[in-house]
Amino acid sequence: MNTSSPKAPSPRTRIRRLAEKANYDQQTLYAVIDEAYLCNIAFNDGTNTHCMPTACWRIGNALYVHGSNGGRLTKILLAGTQVSIAITHLDGLVLARSAFNHSMHYRSAVIYGTFELVEGKQAKIAAMDALMDKIATGRKHEARPGNAKELAATSVMRIALDEAACKISNSAPSDDEEDMQLPVWAGVLPMSVKHDEPIHANEVAIPTPDYVARWVEQ
Amino acid sequence: MNTSSPKAPSPRTRIRRLAEKANYDQQTLYAVIDEAYLCNIAFNDGTNTHCMPTACWRIGNALYVHGSNGGRLTKILLAGTQVSIAITHLDGLVLARSAFNHSMHYRSAVIYGTFELVEGKQAKIAAMDALMDKIATGRKHEARPGNAKELAATSVMRIALDEAACKISNSAPSDDEEDMQLPVWAGVLPMSVKHDEPIHANEVAIPTPDYVARWVEQ
Repeated sequence: MNTSSPKAPSPRTRIRRLAEKANYDQQTLYAVIDEAYLCNIAFNDGTNTHCMPTACWRIGNALYVHGSNGGRLTKILLAGTQVSIAITHLDGLVLARSAFNHSMHYRSAVIYGTFELVEGKQAKIAAMDALMDKIATGRKHEARPGNAKELAATSVMRIALDEAACKISNSAPSDDEEDMQLPVWAGVLPMSVKHDEPIHANEVAIPTPDYVARWVEQ
Repeated sequence: MNTSSPKAPSPRTRIRRLAEKANYDQQTLYAVIDEAYLCNIAFNDGTNTHCMPTACWRIGNALYVHGSNGGRLTKILLAGTQVSIAITHLDGLVLARSAFNHSMHYRSAVIYGTFELVEGKQAKIAAMDALMDKIATGRKHEARPGNAKELAATSVMRIALDEAACKISNSAPSDDEEDMQLPVWAGVLPMSVKHDEPIHANEVAIPTPDYVARWVEQ
């Protein structure tokens, strides 16, 4: 095990278990985030530690989330509370010849830091537009934009991606040498995210946007 | 908003945001957990709050995880540290007529409590067999079982599912009345987990188990 990786950005992001799977590259981190719609934010409110899933997106070197001004999560994040954020994509089950060598294929990221408020109406609109772009490119020009009241009731927050670590597990089953000839099936059962048929909610006929028509094949 | 749900098992599991999506039923919780291979555990080590993804499974009214005896997570969990665990399944993107009414379909669970060690060799083996059953029914009779050294190096831990809350979002887009006639496509872009073609790792021919042959159709 590599117990002294020089690349971890801080002691708390240095991966100690299965350190050979550690990855501290910025592009790897960005790719894990860009494929995720949700992140899990861990924080302590002074009494309890919580883990909350919430929508996320990336602009440049920051991860963004949003919330209602009055919400507990918003208040705690904007109080400068130290957070840890986990995002994981599960890519498959790894079946080894021995029980204890079973594992998974995954790509995970853990981010540390504190959130800051995105201030200014234009910056807030630009950040929300980026979220819409992530959901469907071009849709920001179609949907009714947020009005002054909606914008005012929402806080957009960002955390710099300066202290993070990824762990990438994508290897074939790793069995002990003495187990390699056992008559046990070994391999990977892969998983991926499937896009299913869109569900139309309009009561009147609306032209189907390209990103809806192409959803299943994406 | 329902701010006085009588069913939440504790103040910290009472869902305040979008309380109409709250679900405190045991069967709902079990279903969310049983579909998950990974959970996110939040804990504070006295200095920092962390969020760590790890494999999970359920036996009865408890969630199980395992780890190396020497691992940081294992040590902290067995020290009686208060944890919060989040599991979320993303089922789709909800495209509303207005930007701020966009949302997602999801099923999430948040669990609070502390872990305890599964003590005794037989109890530990039974718990690990349950994990193998989750991965592939019957495989515990095929793979080489854990030996004394492997079992001794691993800690199996469980947390009672007594303090948890689920949030289930599966509604059609919810737009303001004045937006309903806007010429904007509305609906849901559903997602699901797809099982892809198994990757065979054996160098010699091994009969393909039924759970491998049927993986793609499951």
